Amino acid sequence: MRQYILKDFPLDNDSLKLGETIFHNANGYLGVRGNFEEGYPEGYDSIRGTYINGFYDFASMPQAEKLYGLIEEKQTMLNVADTQGITLSVEGETFSLFEGTVLERERLLDMDRGFTLRRILWRSPSGKTVRVSVKRMASFYLLPLFLVEYRAEAVDFSGEVKLISSHKGDVRNYFDPKDPRVAGESFQHLFVQSVEEQEGVSLITSATSKSGLTVVSAVANRLAVEKCQAGTFGAGNAAGQAETSGAGNAAGQTETSGEVNIAGVVSERSFSEAEAAETFTFPMEAGDSAVLYKYTILCDSIRCERVQAEAIKLMEQALSMEAEELYRRQEEYLQKFWQDCAVEVEGDEDLNEAICYNLYQLVQSAGKDVHCNIAAKGLSGEGYEGHYFWDTEMYLQPFYILNAREISKNLIRNRYSILEHAKENAKLLGHKKGAAFPWRTIMGRECSGYFPSGSAQYHISGDIAYCVTAYYLATKDLELLEECGAEILLETARLWMDMGNYYKGKFHINAVTGPDEYTCLVNNNYYTNALAQHNLRWAVKSLELLKAAGREKRLVEKTGITAEELAEFTEAADAMYLPYDEELGINPQDDSFLQKAVWDVAAIKEEEKPLLLHYHPMYLYRYQVCKQADTVLAHFILEDAQDLETIRKSFAYYEKVTTHDSSLSTCIYSIVASRLGLVDKAYEYFGESAKLDLFNTHKNTKDGIHTANMGGTYMAIVYGFGGLRIKERGVCLNPVIPRQWQGYKFRFLYEDASLEVSVDRERCRISLLKGSAKELLVYGETYTVEPGRELEIAVRSEK
Amino acid sequence: MRQYILKDFPLDNDSLKLGETIFHNANGYLGVRGNFEEGYPEGYDSIRGTYINGFYDFASMPQAEKLYGLIEEKQTMLNVADTQGITLSVEGETFSLFEGTVLERERLLDMDRGFTLRRILWRSPSGKTVRVSVKRMASFYLLPLFLVEYRAEAVDFSGEVKLISSHKGDVRNYFDPKDPRVAGESFQHLFVQSVEEQEGVSLITSATSKSGLTVVSAVANRLAVEKCQAGTFGAGNAAGQAETSGAGNAAGQTETSGEVNIAGVVSERSFSEAEAAETFTFPMEAGDSAVLYKYTILCDSIRCERVQAEAIKLMEQALSMEAEELYRRQEEYLQKFWQDCAVEVEGDEDLNEAICYNLYQLVQSAGKDVHCNIAAKGLSGEGYEGHYFWDTEMYLQPFYILNAREISKNLIRNRYSILEHAKENAKLLGHKKGAAFPWRTIMGRECSGYFPSGSAQYHISGDIAYCVTAYYLATKDLELLEECGAEILLETARLWMDMGNYYKGKFHINAVTGPDEYTCLVNNNYYTNALAQHNLRWAVKSLELLKAAGREKRLVEKTGITAEELAEFTEAADAMYLPYDEELGINPQDDSFLQKAVWDVAAIKEEEKPLLLHYHPMYLYRYQVCKQADTVLAHFILEDAQDLETIRKSFAYYEKVTTHDSSLSTCIYSIVASRLGLVDKAYEYFGESAKLDLFNTHKNTKDGIHTANMGGTYMAIVYGFGGLRIKERGVCLNPVIPRQWQGYKFRFLYEDASLEVSVDRERCRISLLKGSAKELLVYGETYTVEPGRELEIAVRSEK
Repeated sequence: MRQYILKDFPLDNDSLKLGETIFHNANGYLGVRGNFEEGYPEGYDSIRGTYINGFYDFASMPQAEKLYGLIEEKQTMLNVADTQGITLSVEGETFSLFEGTVLERERLLDMDRGFTLRRILWRSPSGKTVRVSVKRMASFYLLPLFLVEYRAEAVDFSGEVKLISSHKGDVRNYFDPKDPRVAGESFQHLFVQSVEEQEGVSLITSATSKSGLTVVSAVANRLAVEKCQAGTFGAGNAAGQAETSGAGNAAGQTETSGEVNIAGVVSERSFSEAEAAETFTFPMEAGDSAVLYKYTILCDSIRCERVQAEAIKLMEQALSMEAEELYRRQEEYLQKFWQDCAVEVEGDEDLNEAICYNLYQLVQSAGKDVHCNIAAKGLSGEGYEGHYFWDTEMYLQPFYILNAREISKNLIRNRYSILEHAKENAKLLGHKKGAAFPWRTIMGRECSGYFPSGSAQYHISGDIAYCVTAYYLATKDLELLEECGAEILLETARLWMDMGNYYKGKFHINAVTGPDEYTCLVNNNYYTNALAQHNLRWAVKSLELLKAAGREKRLVEKTGITAEELAEFTEAADAMYLPYDEELGINPQDDSFLQKAVWDVAAIKEEEKPLLLHYHPMYLYRYQVCKQADTVLAHFILEDAQDLETIRKSFAYYEKVTTHDSSLSTCIYSIVASRLGLVDKAYEYFGESAKLDLFNTHKNTKDGIHTANMGGTYMAIVYGFGGLRIKERGVCLNPVIPRQWQGYKFRFLYEDASLEVSVDRERCRISLLKGSAKELLVYGETYTVEPGRELEIAVRSEK
Repeated sequence: MRQYILKDFPLDNDSLKLGETIFHNANGYLGVRGNFEEGYPEGYDSIRGTYINGFYDFASMPQAEKLYGLIEEKQTMLNVADTQGITLSVEGETFSLFEGTVLERERLLDMDRGFTLRRILWRSPSGKTVRVSVKRMASFYLLPLFLVEYRAEAVDFSGEVKLISSHKGDVRNYFDPKDPRVAGESFQHLFVQSVEEQEGVSLITSATSKSGLTVVSAVANRLAVEKCQAGTFGAGNAAGQAETSGAGNAAGQTETSGEVNIAGVVSERSFSEAEAAETFTFPMEAGDSAVLYKYTILCDSIRCERVQAEAIKLMEQALSMEAEELYRRQEEYLQKFWQDCAVEVEGDEDLNEAICYNLYQLVQSAGKDVHCNIAAKGLSGEGYEGHYFWDTEMYLQPFYILNAREISKNLIRNRYSILEHAKENAKLLGHKKGAAFPWRTIMGRECSGYFPSGSAQYHISGDIAYCVTAYYLATKDLELLEECGAEILLETARLWMDMGNYYKGKFHINAVTGPDEYTCLVNNNYYTNALAQHNLRWAVKSLELLKAAGREKRLVEKTGITAEELAEFTEAADAMYLPYDEELGINPQDDSFLQKAVWDVAAIKEEEKPLLLHYHPMYLYRYQVCKQADTVLAHFILEDAQDLETIRKSFAYYEKVTTHDSSLSTCIYSIVASRLGLVDKAYEYFGESAKLDLFNTHKNTKDGIHTANMGGTYMAIVYGFGGLRIKERGVCLNPVIPRQWQGYKFRFLYEDASLEVSVDRERCRISLLKGSAKELLVYGETYTVEPGRELEIAVRSEK
């Protein structure tokens, strides 16, 4: 049972906002924060939001000082219509956790079945007891659908009950001028065009202020009253129910169905300029339960032309299915998901819960079509304004490549869909050729307002290229390479050629920022150069692969690539300068990193963390201090670029100067520690990584989950402890096991096969679940895994 | 006769705005652009402005991306009340250069007498001819006074004439969202508090929006009519005049004085919420002249407490003097100015004119009290928002130190007055100690919105320290050292100690920007390190000097300086790392400059100039391309840090990669070329420098003059061709002479003496105008110059 339960959850404002994130519902298309339907009292601050992946408005972002090429317009993910609102009153007393007495309360996330549940036993100020349970689901089966099942049981009273279901178009994005990690200003982005009703469905159409996009939200309510049966938690159109629907009703009219007489239900609709609401008033007796099914459909003009018509059609499709059927399909979808990755740890239930939670966020967050990607906070909040970063390629794709190829492909296609923007961006940055992918974006244009730790992170182009090759190595999918992958490799390779210059026979890349944002605008960042080298080589290789298959025509025609240019790629890759310090035997992060003063990371006081909120960036640039894994990340993804001894020394060196102020860091340290046999250390880093959001260790989970870190948790198990690498020579495994665990296992796809790796304290077992026999390198030795014959290899102990 | 005359000046908009700058009137306290009193027609764009040095408002400057410590509020120099307006109508036809026929027109700047003159012979559409001449003066004698003498002669008609003199409080700063070098947004900074009249003086009191400052403008008009005398240009209360003054008059009343009957003058006053005006209506006959003396007094709350009372008092003082008396004092002031510097070139009149013009701007621009400094555009326009930069110390003080010590002292005192702000700024930038002077400021707080080419230019602290020592070396003024100079040296030295770190035995200073803004955030910028070394040494020396004189007590008590700290200064100075490239035999601009690709400066197309308006800064950072002299500047100011051969090679190297997109560049190249005996080259660079504004070679003189470049022109003569240096061992001269010149001369102050240097094609003559005998090094050989005995030395020819 994959469940996360929070009993007696605290009601202070920070905990509430944290809960909004933790219990959000998303499916990759839409996301709804776990706000209370009834809201909070005056004075409480809530990030109340519903988001559509890839739906944005343009927002002006003036630069304090105008310089050529600085970005002055960004995109921002919009909070769209609020369809969460449901208010319950019992004989005039309104349900609220902040009034009367809350006798029991818990929140639950069911990751097997894909819903959240909030259960409250509440006694009103006058003493009436109600049991409320709210089940919420963002459907994986019908992506535009968000379903709320709101259940209220009259425990010990009889009287008039009122349920108001609202649908609000007048919404804004959250802002906090004090926190650099969320938007700093309030601005109305979405303007309601119309509020109407069609066949019992309320429809709000809104348009964005600048981007010319439209969104339609449709809401339908279905009320059922279960007479005289003691409430049981959980939904279900069991017998003995009565349903009433507002469909087609004028105010004050009721329509009833089912065998039980509920003639007492009165349904009223109201409309204002930007809001629709439906009020149900009905009598209840002790033991009765009322169940409101509230269907929300979201539709946007990015994905369809006739948005309102599409919303109505989709709503009809949703309403045509019983809720139970929708729940069943949700469970089916997740069953496959869990089966495919099947990550499990034996011996640490808390950790298992955190891992589960993180993997669940990966399926919740990932865009499922070519129009979107994965935002830094998934669809759980507005932190980073819904922008897509390198997180996708370096922290999330490793999971999808191994477990969800369709998602992986779409993500690559999404990057390809913005290739022209990337070329424009390269031009803006002064380049004569190539594609410079934006550091942060939604629709493809750069949104970075501070280029030293934005556009200067040219490595994002290398990251995207790297991901294309990683996908290819795992799948051998020539089709995607032909469709878009090779073109990405080629245009990014061109960028490096325009970026770099030869100096004393070596190819240098200057004035860039690596992953570590505490060291900006440096020369020859090791990570960037190593990645560029890989990029240049694979641009050549990908063309060779296509040529060998006779599939290079489109690419050659479109890009005009010549043999001469390819030779230049190879020459530059061969001459690529990778900084190395003889004395320390490590790869310096960049040309000048080692000459700077060392920041005493161990001495940083709690109130100074994270450093970026307490020091001027330039001050940080003057020190050997890293926000996150940089060279160490290169040692993970391109481990064959250096011998293990260098990696060992680098790891030890950078560990001392890294604050891990970025959530993308500890997972990488965990992976490399595993690789070096430092299993205790790996375990420690892994724990920090896995529990980041559930334990709110970075103190900003309220703004949304740290999606990349969640991918990082997965990587720390599979690439870290499992030691999995997929290289040109094939699958490599180097499993280790932390002494705290009894065992762990995971599955992954490789070419036509699905494999399972199971490790315990003595043995590593590898079996082929489907597909053809595969050669594997385990601890550097070659084995073949065949159908029906499990490999069993002794696990190596910690070094 | 130091005059600049523009006949038949063009009337297109660009030329008009350029003229506004070229013919502005300023005295270091106030500045008024050379706008036409009558304005331009609809559709013309004018930068109409009156400025007070050091008077500012705060303006918000939000950063596109919030990061700790980034500056989000700047100061901006305000356009204060518009008292320029004078409208002339002749029988209902309004004088305008854009209607009727302009028969003659010229503009004149008289630099001996300190006024501008605009002379027009105009025929109205109906054929009436009027001779208009407008003389304007910003008084050096009474700094708050701006005087306009508006003279109109009825050449060939008799009829009713009307003069309207306006006084407007509703003014805004100019803005141009397309140009990064002027303010990008319009904003009302100044709010009129009251418009009133007291004893014939209109008074407008305005308050700033955020800085809490007040300004009062007072205007008084005095009309005189000269009957039946043919108009002669020039002012003067000659006999035969009649005067009428609006003082104390209610609307429609007239008051007359003098022997001539001019009872026909009607004076009317009008007031509105933000404006006052006085209208004079009177009959004229052919041959009559009307002269309106318009007095403006500006007073601000930075400099006095009871601002309005002070304005009235100052107006009384001004009105108590005949205009002629004010003109005479103006001429006296300038006589001394020209006598003290006495720069003259024989053999190139155009150049002489440009030099004169530039020197004149130096006296117009320099703040004359401790409350202000010298803005990048002087008081001639709003470019750079009236901010003070390093220009003061490195390009302007060299002139004042040698010729106007009181100004020089005030400028140092002004920097000292913001020392506490500089300490705060250091804290903001992360430093534990020391003073980091703001890169751009008015009242002391940093105004730089883009720190890589703003606050990162830490060298400004070294520049200010350098200037303190330069002033001391030329004056041996221990008093100023005790009063403030030594403290500046000490607090800036502390900054370097906190900035730098030892690496392999050398003291490194990382993550700074040198003068060249095309190369930002580098390590060990040669200029910065050399300056820091000088700063550290002089912090120690200055304390020794004070100790030797028994005057160190205040400094030691205030700063808590210890022997240990001083020893650290010396140690760091001795260990200072100054990049040197063995192969090229030059000082690299910074650690990584030479490994970057060389930008082919010779191939830059006209439409790509200046590069900063056509390339993303990061792209520029990736190249060996310099906006301006950087290492070459260090080779000028600290020439003994390297042997001449290194300087020669450096000069040749940097010359190839420097675009001179900054106006601070060619003058320095000229100076160093002179030093290297490359006199033709020196002459060429000098010419570019000298003519920048008069010829508008940078195409942005409309926004104001390039004050620093004007100082640079001076430096190129005295430090360049003259080869003057004032070092610890005394005065050094290395005169050369361009073959285009017959000769040149200049004067300068040194210790108690005033010296004159006169160079012709054969001989250099040095004489002591006053003071005691001095030892001099000429061409490296020691001479003594004594009273009454001119030294004569053969001039060395070009190498």
